Amino acid sequence: MALKTLADAFYGELQDILSAERQLVKALPKMMKRASSEELSTAFAEHLAETRVHVERVEKAFEDTGKSPKSKKCEAMAGLVKEAESLMDEDASDEVMDALLIAAAQKVEHYEIATYGTLCTWAEVLGYGHAGKLLGMNIAEEEAADEKLTALSESINIAAITESAV
Amino acid sequence: MALKTLADAFYGELQDILSAERQLVKALPKMMKRASSEELSTAFAEHLAETRVHVERVEKAFEDTGKSPKSKKCEAMAGLVKEAESLMDEDASDEVMDALLIAAAQKVEHYEIATYGTLCTWAEVLGYGHAGKLLGMNIAEEEAADEKLTALSESINIAAITESAV
Repeated sequence: MALKTLADAFYGELQDILSAERQLVKALPKMMKRASSEELSTAFAEHLAETRVHVERVEKAFEDTGKSPKSKKCEAMAGLVKEAESLMDEDASDEVMDALLIAAAQKVEHYEIATYGTLCTWAEVLGYGHAGKLLGMNIAEEEAADEKLTALSESINIAAITESAV
Repeated sequence: MALKTLADAFYGELQDILSAERQLVKALPKMMKRASSEELSTAFAEHLAETRVHVERVEKAFEDTGKSPKSKKCEAMAGLVKEAESLMDEDASDEVMDALLIAAAQKVEHYEIATYGTLCTWAEVLGYGHAGKLLGMNIAEEEAADEKLTALSESINIAAITESAV
């Protein structure tokens, strides 16, 4: 698809985030299973449920603006997932693995925050009010997920250093 | 390298960001040349100069913690650069291309913010005071670059919609 106008750019970005969210729906269950901290595993499970809703909201944003939902492989998310999978193969202690999983998840959240930030701005400029509202709901949940991970990392990092200081 | 301890995780992440920053040093000149807005081109040029310093600070962070600088291909940044290069091939109007370049650059900034966020937290827990300070200087500049791009996007998005509303 040619990106000639800002509306084209908006749809291109929407296709990118649809691919990213779908990739995340597949990656989160593995991260959930690999986490040892019950709180972290629950946080991933909750975010998986949110991510499934994000996919639906993005699909709705296509429909609201007269397009059919379509995805275009998001190479950045593919790289992030590849890195996360490689981390999960490491032979780390439970606590260090949890710290690594948080780091990987926060990179994913930031990718999404940047993309939704652009999408919300463009939706506003383009007058896509309802689609912008849906995308705004997604960005708010990504930001909340990122903050929750930061809060969880405090005790997990301490546990990781205590565990590995041998 | 096996990531058994939090110190190993810290070095792994440092290797990732060294690769990411070096990839960015190569990508920014192309983005700078592709930008039509003089302000945007200048912003990329300024960030290129900062990025070169970021590479040096990351190398110094290795040395400060008794390691030799080493990089490990950052797959996420490779994906981001691949996406940016594909955007630059688009036949968009100058204004839409500038909007696309800002979007691509903000994804890069967010990747780095997330990574430095983790690195700064781990440096603190591990007692790597001086390395943490250097990495903190990098994250502050990435955040400032991201904010600058948001500010620039306001007039560029308006120009893009005006240009493409034909």
